[in-house]
Amino acid sequence: MIRLDTRDAGFADAFTALVEGRREASADVTRDVAAIIRAVRDDGEAAVEAFTRKLDRHDLAETGWRIEPATCAAAYAALDPSLRDALDLAAARIRAYHERQKPTDSDYVDEAGVRLGARWRGVDAAGLYVPGGRAAYPSSLLMNAIPAKVAGVGRLVMVTPTPDGQINDLVLAAAHLAGVDEVWRIGGAQAIAALAYGAGRILPVDVVTGPGNAWVAEAKRQVYGVVGIDMVAGPSEIVVVADALNDPQWTAADLLSQAEHDVTTQSILFTDDAAYADRVAAAVDEELAILPTAAVARAAWDANGAIIVVESLDAACPLVDRLAPEHLQLAVDDPQALFDRVRHAGSVFLGRHTPEAIGDYVAGPNHVLPTGRRARFASGLSVLDFMKRTSFLGLDEAALAKLGPATVALAHAEGLPAHARSVALRLRLNR
Amino acid sequence: MIRLDTRDAGFADAFTALVEGRREASADVTRDVAAIIRAVRDDGEAAVEAFTRKLDRHDLAETGWRIEPATCAAAYAALDPSLRDALDLAAARIRAYHERQKPTDSDYVDEAGVRLGARWRGVDAAGLYVPGGRAAYPSSLLMNAIPAKVAGVGRLVMVTPTPDGQINDLVLAAAHLAGVDEVWRIGGAQAIAALAYGAGRILPVDVVTGPGNAWVAEAKRQVYGVVGIDMVAGPSEIVVVADALNDPQWTAADLLSQAEHDVTTQSILFTDDAAYADRVAAAVDEELAILPTAAVARAAWDANGAIIVVESLDAACPLVDRLAPEHLQLAVDDPQALFDRVRHAGSVFLGRHTPEAIGDYVAGPNHVLPTGRRARFASGLSVLDFMKRTSFLGLDEAALAKLGPATVALAHAEGLPAHARSVALRLRLNR
Repeated sequence: MIRLDTRDAGFADAFTALVEGRREASADVTRDVAAIIRAVRDDGEAAVEAFTRKLDRHDLAETGWRIEPATCAAAYAALDPSLRDALDLAAARIRAYHERQKPTDSDYVDEAGVRLGARWRGVDAAGLYVPGGRAAYPSSLLMNAIPAKVAGVGRLVMVTPTPDGQINDLVLAAAHLAGVDEVWRIGGAQAIAALAYGAGRILPVDVVTGPGNAWVAEAKRQVYGVVGIDMVAGPSEIVVVADALNDPQWTAADLLSQAEHDVTTQSILFTDDAAYADRVAAAVDEELAILPTAAVARAAWDANGAIIVVESLDAACPLVDRLAPEHLQLAVDDPQALFDRVRHAGSVFLGRHTPEAIGDYVAGPNHVLPTGRRARFASGLSVLDFMKRTSFLGLDEAALAKLGPATVALAHAEGLPAHARSVALRLRLNR
Repeated sequence: MIRLDTRDAGFADAFTALVEGRREASADVTRDVAAIIRAVRDDGEAAVEAFTRKLDRHDLAETGWRIEPATCAAAYAALDPSLRDALDLAAARIRAYHERQKPTDSDYVDEAGVRLGARWRGVDAAGLYVPGGRAAYPSSLLMNAIPAKVAGVGRLVMVTPTPDGQINDLVLAAAHLAGVDEVWRIGGAQAIAALAYGAGRILPVDVVTGPGNAWVAEAKRQVYGVVGIDMVAGPSEIVVVADALNDPQWTAADLLSQAEHDVTTQSILFTDDAAYADRVAAAVDEELAILPTAAVARAAWDANGAIIVVESLDAACPLVDRLAPEHLQLAVDDPQALFDRVRHAGSVFLGRHTPEAIGDYVAGPNHVLPTGRRARFASGLSVLDFMKRTSFLGLDEAALAKLGPATVALAHAEGLPAHARSVALRLRLNR
């Protein structure tokens, strides 16, 4: 953890180093991933079987390629009732929030008599990647699958690795709840390739979303353009802006809730009170002493954590914008005043009683959010990621008479005479 | 040009070959582009100067890096009045169409007492690539710059190569009209790298859009994630669905308006009348005999053109969906009936008096559209490409009491105790 104060000499350089620090995996996986994708394109199912045997240590011919809907339904039925209720609540609230994202079609005739508009439709098929092992989160499945269903996607395909054949029942239960149509027990770059290009029994999809390790992320980047993808995701991060009226233990828990995900995650506190900063630092140590995930959380906090003392919380806002964090918690009495001053953040958590974890599960907004300063230009996952828009226009003879001459002039100016002619012939113009 | 009939034996295979045929540049530019980007990141301005000297054959230190706003204003003032009127009309109509794309913020309190919403903002800075030479289209500049302005982008940066120092006055005039803030006379992968990472006097941007050659397209793909990009674009294509009541000469001109762009473009006609197909094929030859751009158009038509006779125009719709064309012209009396049956197309041109060229210039919808079957999942350029959405939520103590227990249950089920604790502490729960 580093401790900074905006009044220190050298603050500007130290903060720039924090902003520009790369926490993303540096492993050169590009070539390996390209080879896997090539193999799946060339050899289809056989390549997927071979990579699964090697990397997940089970034989698809024996374990089976698919997990049947009945298995997912049984996993859901077997859930502890309180957990099932929690998943149901999460799904219902996520659905309600995303229903409001559905775009409206337009269709109008303007003053020139031109019919204009845009029509939104869900894609035919979407593929959802769900990591295996430690990072297999049913909440992530809901956050990916429900927007796709709301978008009207016809075929919802999930891929998830089952290392050593081990299946995660909680993920299957969530797949049932979310209405996933197909579940394939494959993972890694080979699963992304199978979704993008198809592989025998696995038919190709149009959009691929979902979190994954560096191989999965690189595979998504390489198939981008063949299919749509959600985004290039990096390690998670949180920025907490808090005054001294917060319980330091609450703030410490908030910072650690990000840190426990992975050693590459980043937690940053801005506060206007140096004594409060000390109390939070001490509370972090106390929490780490009892936290079951302390090994990971401590490593992340030590390597990437920061506490920054600012002259006023208003002065934190431009610094927050430079970080453009995935998650921003504004733990003050009047969070709206700070929110109005911040331009760049994936999701904002307003007030002292809105810990980020609420947004991870049940609040409703998507928890798939832009990381690594990408909130400058990118947005969280939404229904729009599973839809596409077709624009349309229609002119009659009178409207073409109005717009045609300008089109002919511009087409000739650009050296495109056939463009001009397609209009001029209809107008019976002599050029 | 190939001629197919759905009733022929072998149609299915021939059509699949047409759908799957790759027309995209196969040159392996990946490594070259990576080296250029690396050089610009390492050496900044010096690298950009060196690549410009080598590839565009002029010295930025002598010709100057920037084209001043006054130069653009002068180019606009010097336009032939009818051309200026045409550009003005195009800009006004493009602006009017894109104004309607502006998303609405949401901010509401749901029945659990949770404040929820989403806030859209324009990105701080956008970079527009404008090709030099033959493909320097002022219309493309308008189609990229105006949505960015409507989105509220603060800083609009244009890069355009000036090979041998030659400046395209029409493009500068359009830059003035569209309100571009900075014009830099650089191009190629080095310009994309300068936009994404900054290079000395060129400050980095957040989103990069605009057409370009294979190097530019690959550079955009490689910086994707560092900045937002519009899309991976390939050669242009048109599908015309026409009955025998159309003038074959009109249809021929429509097909050739796509073909004249580049030898890689594709023009496809579906018709339900074999004799009409013959007449269009003959009319294409007649048009080619007089077209100034016949060399390119003939090469494209010969290599990639197709005329497909179908039993009924309804039967063409599922075939159109498999092609998911960038442009779809429905040249019939009741285009809506066919439009209702088509799911995948970038933009649809309804009726006999709506040639695609109208949409290239003055109709209003964007002419930057998904190519190469990407209309299955991608949309034309829009205001949304220059904006990002921040979700937000706010809970008070009562709302947290409602949603907290489910969050705690799910966090524990996912093995994330600090997540659970950040909520439980606030609820004074004992876990």
